[in-house]
Parts: sequence; structure tokens; C-alpha cells
Amino acid sequence: MNPQQAYDELVQRSQEIFTIHSIESLTSWDQQVNMPPKGVTHRARMMAYLAQLGHQKSTDPRIGELLAAAEGATWPIGQAANLREWRRDYDQATRLPEALVTHRAGLITRANAIWQAARASSDFRAFAPILGEIVALCRDEADCLGWQAERYDALLDRFEPDLTTAQCDAWFAELRGAVAPLLQRIVASPLQPDKNLFRGATFPRNRQQALGRAVTAALGFDYQAGRLDASTHPFTTGPCSQDVRLTTRYNAKDPFQALMGTIHEAGHGMYGQGVRLEHEGAPLGRSASLGLHESQSRFFENNIGRSRPFWAYWFPRFKKTFGRAVHHVDSEAFYRLLNKVEPTFIRVEADEVTYNLHIMVRFEIERDLMRDDLAVADLPAVWNARYQEYLGITPPTDRDGVLQDIHWSWGLLGYFPTYSLGTVYAAQLEAALRRATPDLDAQMAAGEFGAALAWMREQIHQPGMTYRPAELIEHATGQRPAAADYIAYLTGRYTELYGDQ
Amino acid sequence: MNPQQAYDELVQRSQEIFTIHSIESLTSWDQQVNMPPKGVTHRARMMAYLAQLGHQKSTDPRIGELLAAAEGATWPIGQAANLREWRRDYDQATRLPEALVTHRAGLITRANAIWQAARASSDFRAFAPILGEIVALCRDEADCLGWQAERYDALLDRFEPDLTTAQCDAWFAELRGAVAPLLQRIVASPLQPDKNLFRGATFPRNRQQALGRAVTAALGFDYQAGRLDASTHPFTTGPCSQDVRLTTRYNAKDPFQALMGTIHEAGHGMYGQGVRLEHEGAPLGRSASLGLHESQSRFFENNIGRSRPFWAYWFPRFKKTFGRAVHHVDSEAFYRLLNKVEPTFIRVEADEVTYNLHIMVRFEIERDLMRDDLAVADLPAVWNARYQEYLGITPPTDRDGVLQDIHWSWGLLGYFPTYSLGTVYAAQLEAALRRATPDLDAQMAAGEFGAALAWMREQIHQPGMTYRPAELIEHATGQRPAAADYIAYLTGRYTELYGDQ
Repeated sequence: MNPQQAYDELVQRSQEIFTIHSIESLTSWDQQVNMPPKGVTHRARMMAYLAQLGHQKSTDPRIGELLAAAEGATWPIGQAANLREWRRDYDQATRLPEALVTHRAGLITRANAIWQAARASSDFRAFAPILGEIVALCRDEADCLGWQAERYDALLDRFEPDLTTAQCDAWFAELRGAVAPLLQRIVASPLQPDKNLFRGATFPRNRQQALGRAVTAALGFDYQAGRLDASTHPFTTGPCSQDVRLTTRYNAKDPFQALMGTIHEAGHGMYGQGVRLEHEGAPLGRSASLGLHESQSRFFENNIGRSRPFWAYWFPRFKKTFGRAVHHVDSEAFYRLLNKVEPTFIRVEADEVTYNLHIMVRFEIERDLMRDDLAVADLPAVWNARYQEYLGITPPTDRDGVLQDIHWSWGLLGYFPTYSLGTVYAAQLEAALRRATPDLDAQMAAGEFGAALAWMREQIHQPGMTYRPAELIEHATGQRPAAADYIAYLTGRYTELYGDQ
Repeated sequence: MNPQQAYDELVQRSQEIFTIHSIESLTSWDQQVNMPPKGVTHRARMMAYLAQLGHQKSTDPRIGELLAAAEGATWPIGQAANLREWRRDYDQATRLPEALVTHRAGLITRANAIWQAARASSDFRAFAPILGEIVALCRDEADCLGWQAERYDALLDRFEPDLTTAQCDAWFAELRGAVAPLLQRIVASPLQPDKNLFRGATFPRNRQQALGRAVTAALGFDYQAGRLDASTHPFTTGPCSQDVRLTTRYNAKDPFQALMGTIHEAGHGMYGQGVRLEHEGAPLGRSASLGLHESQSRFFENNIGRSRPFWAYWFPRFKKTFGRAVHHVDSEAFYRLLNKVEPTFIRVEADEVTYNLHIMVRFEIERDLMRDDLAVADLPAVWNARYQEYLGITPPTDRDGVLQDIHWSWGLLGYFPTYSLGTVYAAQLEAALRRATPDLDAQMAAGEFGAALAWMREQIHQPGMTYRPAELIEHATGQRPAAADYIAYLTGRYTELYGDQ
């Protein structure tokens, strides 16, 4: 078999697997947005069938033969990237024995149900035994996948290629060194926002939705190639780049929850819409990593969507949308409330400044579990101690603490750090974008929002998986991933708001 | 291989094929209800992939071996029915050569696009060449499938097992003999409804939807196992009996369109929800035929939903729902308008009395095309002549005539007669139901609607494919399918409304 033929067949097989994943995405989206309650039993069969089909196709020994035949040749950068990623996919899929894959599927279904009940009754001991099984499973998986410096590296690499524990340790230390004193200054500052600004006001859902659509359309989300719906847990998915689906949740008392959530998801969605159509179905038409994906959602939500020039344009529209309910609100009080900082227990409700402290707790726990330095039974105590140390508060219950996140029940150890990476990448990208577009703020204040997406399209979306994540960041910003821009960004925005005393 | 093992593996394979069809149904529903416009290209790939996968699984030679092994034994009625239908499915799927199946897929995609353009410009000559290809395809398919008396029988049998041209000829002659004079009396009657009853009124969509949900929930559609959405062309589908999806379309000026459409689709939907869960995935858990399916939608829409006792209960709710807009409407004027009879050009807008005349035109044309007694080029002339003869009107354009239906562009010759069969079955079933439930009208007038569905569940839904369609009707009503009950029903209702002069 000549290398070109092998490559062409790999493209074809990659597109078939992509099509199966498309159908899976749609089926899962429907389950969360539309499915009537009784549909759940058969839906599980549909999902299991698609997962099994995808796994079969991904581990077909023919792919191994094709890779071996194609890898012998020298390829231009794009094809070489496809081959590199196909190899990675194939090795990851085939290194895990069938028995382990089946074991995982059953385990996380049970674990998720147990976690839901345990969280509802705030009873960590009910969750601990099966969490122990999940930790053991992840340990086995890491050993099958292989690692060099330490076991947790294998889990990190699944979600963010090349990311290591050592890197995370260094970054989180640097972040903590900057964020801890910033947070102390904020908490002690007399310049606190008026938390009762919206007291008594009601924000009708259809108006919230119209505003969310208008804002995200202006940022560049293409509603001819996507939709916005409501769901309990906001997320973004979709069968292809031309059909990307955002969901959000509405709170009639708090207009920020849906709006900022919609912008966040639209950041993911614009990345999804931004790949080159001719590469769809191959790695060149995929996003580079979870961290990069989160960089796009965080960038549009926070770096853009919580900035003064952005609201210089949108605040009048906000007032007009909600009319009498916000008649008394002025732009400065609005902006300060939007950027309120306050240590809280729940990660998904955290502000920008405290967010990475929440992640740090989870990272350290996962790392120590994989090092066998921590027993599952000790998790609540360790969790609460770290929250006290990093955020100055102790969760009153495990429900507000160690039981709050769904991730561990799904066996997703190694995932949390990509959230923090997203914030770091976002700030680095913003700094580079501003070097390329010095009048960005003036454009936004004038209602022109195209520049940010245009730059991201070229630098981040269209390359797909041409580069590994760290290379892509270097390619786009001139620097390897580093926390400096993020620290400067955070310190700048919140010192302006809360003062520097 | 022993027969029981073979049977068990057939059950398993049947469930796998059912799961693929579930995923197909959901993907198709989403395309018509949710998909953003740009999603269409990749959606076609997803649908094609699922169709190909389903076809592969349905024609696996292993099924032939298993059938041969199982058919040697004697089976109880249920298992025998499963084997009979698996055999039918397998033979139908494998008798059509792969090349013909592929040819059909490409042909109908092109034909549908050409038909849409031809209908828009009312240009039959633009559609004629590809319609000729479709007629040729159907002829080839009929010959592959096999037939005895005449070719068109093979097409009828695809949609309604055992239905023959000779039977249709006899029924349609009998129907026409009764309906033609009835229609003449109606058209000439001085007792015409007030067509301007709703002039100037507006019917808000959310209220129409709430009323449609309330009515169909009262009839027995389970919204915990289904949904109601809007789409351009109303239909019912869904991945399984516990997730059945109705769609309807709303007209702000005409409250009957959505309401009666919703009841019609709920009739289909309740059949879908009514199979025995333990048989789902096998023929015993499937509806018996398209004609039987249509009997359920027609029964709830017309026999029940256009009856006086039904509206004795619902009319006050209708008035309350739309308030001032219908303040002046009394129940008699309402009921007469709901049952207005008037020859019109468009089948999907036809009333009960003229409906089967529309079908008759299509049946005769399809039959004559398969007999080579009619050339495609002559269709508009023949169509218009038959409309003049049967309905007393001549379509002013082909758009209002021979180009109005989508079916031929999809290659669905042999399908239309199942619509008429549905009306005939519905009347026969109503007569039997009334024998079993003499106080049906009193129950409905008192707001109790459970009896009709309970009877259909037992007689029609739960048997699944235990019996062939004609046997099932006989089992439920004591008589083979016959037009007498339908003629009596139609004559009774419309003579009461329009008088007998």
C-alpha cells in the first residue's frame, strides 16, 4: 500500500468516525434539551450503541496498518498534523483494554446516580466507596496509557495534550502568589458594589433571550449555523461546524446569569463554527484542546464581556430591554455589580478572581490521589482545609464542598486544570490581539465587535490541530503559555475597581 | 443451530436495527424542527450514513440463515408473527439489488429538488422527465419484489401488506357510488355554514398550543412520553414508544388548522405509545400498517374530534381560551363551520366528504402508470379531467393540481391508498367501539374520553403485528375490511348537517 493511498483511506475513516460522533452529539443534545422523561431508558440504548460503534471504528486494526504505511513518508505540515493526531487517537483507544472500557461505562453510570443522591443528602460517605473505584480505574487507565514523570500526567494529557503535573504546579503557584494578595485587598476594600441593585426587579425570560441573542450575534456567533436553547446545565455541542448549539439557563431575578452564560457558550460556539469546512472530519478541522476551547469561552465572557468599552455600547440596550425594572440603575453601579468579587463555595458561580482558587483545590486533590498521598476518605477534610486556606471560607456542608461537581462521578480526573488553562490562554491571546488592534476598545465602544473574532479565527480556529496547544499559543502570541498576561489582566481590572490599598 | 437459538439471535438483531431506526427518526425529526439552515449539508451525510448502516444490518446474510433455522419449527402465534414479518422485511430488503437502492437514493434527492422548483413555478414539464425516471424505478422495484395479478400490487403491498389493486378498485367504486350523490346534495343544500364566522378574529399561537395540548392529553396522549412542536409540514415520529413527537402548524386566522392537525397527529402518536414495551424492537411491538396508523389519526381527528358530543364538552373551553375574539360565536355555528364541506383543489385541506375523491384520482393515475395505460406527459390533462368529473372543479394551475403532493418526488407510488383505507378502517372501528361502549357519547359530553383509547389499545395497539392488517380489523370488529360502516358514518353525519334533499 502506498503512503498516499493509506492517507486517503485514513481521511475517509476519520470522516466516518466524525459522522458517528456528530450523531452522538445530536442525540445527547436532544436528551438534555428535548427528551420527555420516559424516553430515558431507550435513549441510554441509543447512546450506548453509538458509543460502541464509534469505539469499534476507532480501534479497527486496519487503522493501525494504514498509519504504519502512511507514517513512512514525509508530509507537509497539515497532513503531518492529521497523521500525528490519528496516531494519538488510535494509540489512546487501543491501549485501553476492552474490559476496562466496558468497566468504565458501567461504573460511571452507577457512580453518577450515587453521586446525585449523595449530593442531595450531603452525604460524602455514600459516595466514597464508588469514588474509590473511580480513582482505581483512573489509575489503571493512566498505567495503560503510559506516563513518564508521574501518573497524573497521563490523565492531564488526555484532555490537554502535553500538559504535565510539574507545569500545573508551577503555574498554580505563580497564580496563587498573585491572586491571594489581590483577593485580600478586594475583600478589605471599602469600594464594594451595591449587591441590592436589582432587588425587586424581574427580568422576563423572552427579553433576556433576545438580549443574549443580540449580543452574541454582534460578537459573531452565526445563528444560521447554530441555535440557542435552554437547559438545566448550560453547555455547547452540535453535530458539525454548521450546526452548533448553545444552551443557557434563565434566572428571572438575575439578568447576568443567562447573559454571561450565553456569551460564554457562544465563545465555545464560535470556535466550533470557525474551523475550515474542507478539513471537517479530520484533526485539522478540530479544536486544538479543551484548554483552547475554554480560552475562547472565557475570552468572550470575561475579557470582552465584562469590560468597560463593551458595556459602553451595550448598557443603553440593557436599559431599554428591561425598561422600568432597571430605570434607577446607572452604568457605574451596573459595571461594578457585574464584576463583583466575593469568595463563595460553588465553583460554577465563582467570579474571575476566585475562580482559579477553586480549580487549584481540585487539581491538588487529584494529583495527590494519583500519587497515593491522599485517601478518598480524607477528601472532605482536605477540601475544607484548602478552601479555608485559599478562599478564607469553610463550606458548611459537603454539598457546598467536595460533592458539588459532577466530574469525578463521570470519571473525569485530569479535566479541571483545563478550565484554569483557559483563563491563562485567554489573557495571553487578549494581549496579542491588542498589540495587533490598538483601537480595540474604541471599536467596541462604537458597537463594532468584529475584530476579536476575526483575529481568533485566523490565529486559533482555522489552524485546527495543526499545532499542539502550547505551540499554537506560541504561534499566535509569540510566547509559550505563561501566567504573566493573566496576572496583569486580573490585577489591572480589579485594582481599577477595588483600589490598591 | 437450534431454532430457539436462531430465534433469540433474530430478536437481538431486530433490536439492533430498531435502535438504528430510532436514531434515524430522531435525526430526521431534529432536521425538520430544529436544524439551522446551514446544517443541511452535513445532515444529509448523517442521514445517509444511518440509512446505509440500517440497510447493511437488514440484509446481512446471517439473517437469512437464522430465518431458515427458525422457520423449521412450530411456534406460538406471537413468535410466528415475528418470524413472518422478519422474513417479509428480509426478502423485501434483499430482493432489491444494491444498485437499485443506490439509484433510488440519488434519484429522489434530485427529484425532490426539481419538484419543489416545478411546483413553485407551476411548471409540470420541468418535473415530467424525472417523474418518468421515478415511474420506471418503481416499475423495476415492483418487478424485483414480485407480483401476481398486476404490477401495482407490489407497490401497494409495500405500504399495506396484502392490499391489491382489485380490492382498491372495488372499494373506490363503492365509495364513489355513495359519496358522489352525497356531495351533490351538500353542494346544492341551502344549509351552508357561515364561512365568515371568525372574520377579523386572531388566535394567539400560545393559546392554540395550550388548547391542543389539553385536548390531546384528555384523549390520552402521554406528554411524559412525548412532545408537541411546530413544523412546516405536520408529522409524527420519535425514537421509541416512550418518546413520541407530534408536530403541527399554527394559523393565527384559523383555529381549526392547528387544533384538528394536533388531534390527528396525536392519533398517530397514541398508536406509537400504545405498543407493548416488552415487544419493542420486534414486529410484535410495531404498528400493523400505514392504513391502520391512518385509521387512528383519522378516528381521533374526525370520528371523535368533529363529533357533537366531543364539542359539547370542549366548546366552552374553546370560548374561554380565545375570549373576546369568539364572544359572538354560538355552538351550532361553530360546529357547522368545523364540518364545512366544499370541493377544493388541495388534498391536505380537504374535508372528510371530498377527501377520498382526491385519493381516488391519485390511485387511478398510479395504477394506470403501472399498467402502461398512461404516459407521464398526459398527467396534467388526466388529473384535471378527473377533478372535474369527481369534484366538479378544474384546478386553474398544475401547482393547484398534479404538482401539489410531495409523494411522487419521493418515489412513494402505492402510498396514497393507505390514506383512504385509514378512513374506512376508522369507521369500522368506531362502529365496533360503539357496540362495546353504548354510552360513548354521554361519556364524551361529560368530559370522559378514556374509553376510545382504552378500546384501541386493546384491539389495535397492543397486538402490534400479531395479525396482518385485514385479519386485525376482522379480529377487532368481527368483519373483514369493508366500506359499509364508513359510508353510513359519512352519510349520517353530513345528512344531519346539510339535510337530505
